[in-house]
Amino acid sequence: MATGKINVSVDNIFPLIKKFLYSDHEIFLRELISNATDATLKLKHLTAIGEAKVEYGNPLIEVKIDKEGKKLHVIDQGLGMTEEEVKKYINEVAFSGAEEFLNKYEDSAKDAGIIGHFGLGFYSAFMVAHKVEIITKSYKEEPAVHWTCDGSPNFTIEESNKTERGTEIILHIAEDSTEFLEEGRIRELLRKYNKFMPVPIKFGTKTETLPKPEDAKEEDPAPTKEVDNIINNPNPAWTKQPTDLKDEDYKSFYRELYPMQFEEPLFHIHLNVDYPFNLTGILYFPKLTNDLNIQKDKIQLYQNQVFVTDNVEGIVPEFLTMLRGVIDSPDIPLNVSRSYLQADGAVKKISSYITGKVADKLNSLFKNNREDFEKKWNDIKIVIEYGMLSEDKFFEKADKFALYPTVDGAYYTFEELQEKIKGNQTDKDDKMVILYASDKEAQHSYIETAKAKGYEVLLLDSPIIGHLMQKLETTKEKISFARVDADHIDKLIQKEDTQISKLSDEEKEKLKADLEAVFGEKSNYTVQLEAMDSDASPFVITEPEFLRRMKEMQQTGGGGMFGMGNMPEMYNLIVNTNHELVSEILNTKTAKKKERLINQSLDLAKLSKGLLKGADLTNFIKRSYEMVK
Amino acid sequence: MATGKINVSVDNIFPLIKKFLYSDHEIFLRELISNATDATLKLKHLTAIGEAKVEYGNPLIEVKIDKEGKKLHVIDQGLGMTEEEVKKYINEVAFSGAEEFLNKYEDSAKDAGIIGHFGLGFYSAFMVAHKVEIITKSYKEEPAVHWTCDGSPNFTIEESNKTERGTEIILHIAEDSTEFLEEGRIRELLRKYNKFMPVPIKFGTKTETLPKPEDAKEEDPAPTKEVDNIINNPNPAWTKQPTDLKDEDYKSFYRELYPMQFEEPLFHIHLNVDYPFNLTGILYFPKLTNDLNIQKDKIQLYQNQVFVTDNVEGIVPEFLTMLRGVIDSPDIPLNVSRSYLQADGAVKKISSYITGKVADKLNSLFKNNREDFEKKWNDIKIVIEYGMLSEDKFFEKADKFALYPTVDGAYYTFEELQEKIKGNQTDKDDKMVILYASDKEAQHSYIETAKAKGYEVLLLDSPIIGHLMQKLETTKEKISFARVDADHIDKLIQKEDTQISKLSDEEKEKLKADLEAVFGEKSNYTVQLEAMDSDASPFVITEPEFLRRMKEMQQTGGGGMFGMGNMPEMYNLIVNTNHELVSEILNTKTAKKKERLINQSLDLAKLSKGLLKGADLTNFIKRSYEMVK
Repeated sequence: MATGKINVSVDNIFPLIKKFLYSDHEIFLRELISNATDATLKLKHLTAIGEAKVEYGNPLIEVKIDKEGKKLHVIDQGLGMTEEEVKKYINEVAFSGAEEFLNKYEDSAKDAGIIGHFGLGFYSAFMVAHKVEIITKSYKEEPAVHWTCDGSPNFTIEESNKTERGTEIILHIAEDSTEFLEEGRIRELLRKYNKFMPVPIKFGTKTETLPKPEDAKEEDPAPTKEVDNIINNPNPAWTKQPTDLKDEDYKSFYRELYPMQFEEPLFHIHLNVDYPFNLTGILYFPKLTNDLNIQKDKIQLYQNQVFVTDNVEGIVPEFLTMLRGVIDSPDIPLNVSRSYLQADGAVKKISSYITGKVADKLNSLFKNNREDFEKKWNDIKIVIEYGMLSEDKFFEKADKFALYPTVDGAYYTFEELQEKIKGNQTDKDDKMVILYASDKEAQHSYIETAKAKGYEVLLLDSPIIGHLMQKLETTKEKISFARVDADHIDKLIQKEDTQISKLSDEEKEKLKADLEAVFGEKSNYTVQLEAMDSDASPFVITEPEFLRRMKEMQQTGGGGMFGMGNMPEMYNLIVNTNHELVSEILNTKTAKKKERLINQSLDLAKLSKGLLKGADLTNFIKRSYEMVK
Repeated sequence: MATGKINVSVDNIFPLIKKFLYSDHEIFLRELISNATDATLKLKHLTAIGEAKVEYGNPLIEVKIDKEGKKLHVIDQGLGMTEEEVKKYINEVAFSGAEEFLNKYEDSAKDAGIIGHFGLGFYSAFMVAHKVEIITKSYKEEPAVHWTCDGSPNFTIEESNKTERGTEIILHIAEDSTEFLEEGRIRELLRKYNKFMPVPIKFGTKTETLPKPEDAKEEDPAPTKEVDNIINNPNPAWTKQPTDLKDEDYKSFYRELYPMQFEEPLFHIHLNVDYPFNLTGILYFPKLTNDLNIQKDKIQLYQNQVFVTDNVEGIVPEFLTMLRGVIDSPDIPLNVSRSYLQADGAVKKISSYITGKVADKLNSLFKNNREDFEKKWNDIKIVIEYGMLSEDKFFEKADKFALYPTVDGAYYTFEELQEKIKGNQTDKDDKMVILYASDKEAQHSYIETAKAKGYEVLLLDSPIIGHLMQKLETTKEKISFARVDADHIDKLIQKEDTQISKLSDEEKEKLKADLEAVFGEKSNYTVQLEAMDSDASPFVITEPEFLRRMKEMQQTGGGGMFGMGNMPEMYNLIVNTNHELVSEILNTKTAKKKERLINQSLDLAKLSKGLLKGADLTNFIKRSYEMVK
């Protein structure tokens, strides 16, 4: 038996880096600016603790395009490197640190991504440059260094006459990457990745108007001067303490994040935790529509103020991806798959922390300013309802503040609703029936009928409400939801007392035969004779709750029963045997007149339920014009 | 000046591989089976050309779980490796070949992904295993080899007593990866990645029923035997020649691809090209709904029968991502970003080839069986219309076969439509007006009015039709589209002859005052008095084409004008001064009766346009019930 050591040799890593290191070449600039930022912040730290005896000052990072010379410069005023450090950090591509780093990672649950830690960030420059120079002067008393590499493994190193502290990286942009010599492209990248990085980044200059000197004449133009054009905001709102921010600061930060968004956010939640993981951020509730699909992917994920992605799937619970804002955490592993993320313990904790924070904020809004919370309810309900459906812990909390609006604009919590309707809306089987409408306009006549009985009618119109009703019906005891057009009013909430029919059984038989003669085989209505109030409608069309709800649930995805989405609608035609018109139908002798009465009544019942359409409607209108004359 | 060589050292690549090589650990199995397949197919080639003097036979790849021993085996009957080959291919992690490979890549425009080519595929085993063994016997007359590595860079190698040709990989599954010892999980992976790989893959056995022997008694059970359970189809339809396949073969392959899909595809397109790039595949047109968003990502991308992804964005033109099926090409670079893909020359050629093939197929369907094409039109129009909008080349071709259905079920090409309606539907400014409805039911009365004039009315109801009309109006000359309710019929297509009004100018003034007195300030209708046919409706509500179309275009995304999506609807109320009822309104003396006539007429006009809702509708119905009695 022989033993040996696996030999991993990399003769020339540059072609590999160029082709495969990143899928997006553009991120080279993010990497170089991250390095420059690190070098600056490290110097700040060293001066603060007295280890570096130099003036920290107000260092900038400068990005400069030399279009003619086909060069891009990134210049910082940070630590700088001595010759020895260049040899150590640049000439040795530090794959070798992998194991050490990973061991550390397991212990501290920290991971800022492979790239930065293995020193590969700098090499990403070779994705866009055929030659790279480093001119660097350390804060230590040592000569400056000039390093050059043309993309082969060979480099040169010599002394430089650079006198200011810091590092300048010069990229000689390759033929296939000249886009990175365009001012517009570089500005776009700086805005995308570096908008909130902690060291000011200068890109070009701009003209600023100065105050006029006191002795200036009125016609004199105000003096101007060229000043640095700083493209980033090094102190974004989420890095500050909530106590240091006013409501207006949060709003103006929202505008900074979404400059194309004209509508203001409804409210915000400031996240700030440092144990057992680090996370800061601000989440905003925007006005939400009922469309679940189009409003995702607006939350931006940062790692120490460096933009990473706007896909927070797996980090934030699904139902909160409809919110907007920023999350910044060094504790979220970035280079692993989404499925891995979802299993990761730290990420799970983050997700549940965010859910809890959102629930707490909503609860305090509800408690502290209920009127305002009610006003916002319709713009935020979709998130809350979705959360109640998908996260049991959120359901428990939200059950206290989730609102149920009525068609008349009152807002009840579930508990309040129960208190309010228990007496009047409990049926003979001791079940509390919650009546609702999904459309105030379309179901108007049914709503009026229910209100006339003194019932409360909720207005529940979000696309997932069917699922939530299902959940409430199984979570709470002895309640059920019924849409106002699910049955006629005396059946919706069945009490003990039954109405007496004006018609005898014999008359009912005859009426039924009359109706069937007119409707014939073609009818898709199930006719039911009912003894209702004499002033209720003569004909009413109803649509049973269970089937309709199942159909709707299927259509909004998930739930319901398999195949129900495609089932035809089913209607009942309730005929009120106590109504005058129905007696008239029964007693009319001429067949033609009887038919006309039945058809006109049916058309009116269909109209009420929005079912009179096409040729039937056109004919109805024609007949009605004639009746007007 | 000093020079030197950048030193890339990798002390231990395993932790790196484990954490970062792939984002999904599960693909280790795909990699190992790909290696096994390569080893088998290479042996086939060598025996075919006489270089390997062995029997090729019917080799299998076997995947076996040893749950108790916590091991997973992948066994092939391919080439095998000699000791020397193990040392060369396994012990040297072949990063060193990177440059050579990439140079070759530039020349031949081939790229099958970094993983396979750099020999890293095998090492992906260490993502899920703490120890890996290779037992291999070459087809050459050399002793078998047993290689073992525990995840450190140290390995052992010794002779093995394996006698059959081929390679067995044994993974000792790590504690955190025990999911890969579950039969269900492995079956899921084999189905996902290896369903169509070219060598049969055995996973377990199944029981097969044999025919009864002739002398068996009736009550004897039929004999059975255990046979290999082959989980893949090594010869999927797309690898065959179209001439060798019947329609039923395509359908059954569709069922193989989408076992949960009960609906049959409408038709298929077999792709097959080997110059200037290699591509095979089958695309299917499923029945499409009008929802643009939910039906994407059904096309599967393969590379030499290995599943890669079901995201073909960038490879297939956007409008064709609604189709289903398979594309197989070794020429599509996989490990680069989507934005890079879109700029890649080979990919552009592939995309335009596919577009052309689809257009040709549609054209031949149209020409060879127009009746059938018409039947399928409504299920496929969304793709064709989307393609006409987004790809000019496709527009040119599709303009010949795109259909415009009428409300009466006739289907015209644009040219045929022009021929048919030019005479009757050209207005006094020589513009041909194409009338359409978007909803046969809701616009029934308007459609009837247009048909009474002998006009053709198209039924155009796809969500992007507004954009297509806009394109047709600017591409073709002197045509315009107008929805039947955009104006009253005499104004929709304005001819020279004008109707004479029965009312004098004085009477018109009086009528207008009467109407305004009833409508009051609250009205959002612009009242227009028009002299129409006396048997046309007395009141008609219209909605101008331009504004409505812009609003709709904005709502389906893109196009239209900024901010128009939120503008309120605008309606005109056309009052027919030649209608009897209008004269009656004018001549009625009692204010109350006049008001009732006006309100009832307005309600009927609103009903016709679907605008009578809520309390207004409930009141109208109540009034109407009273009129019935």
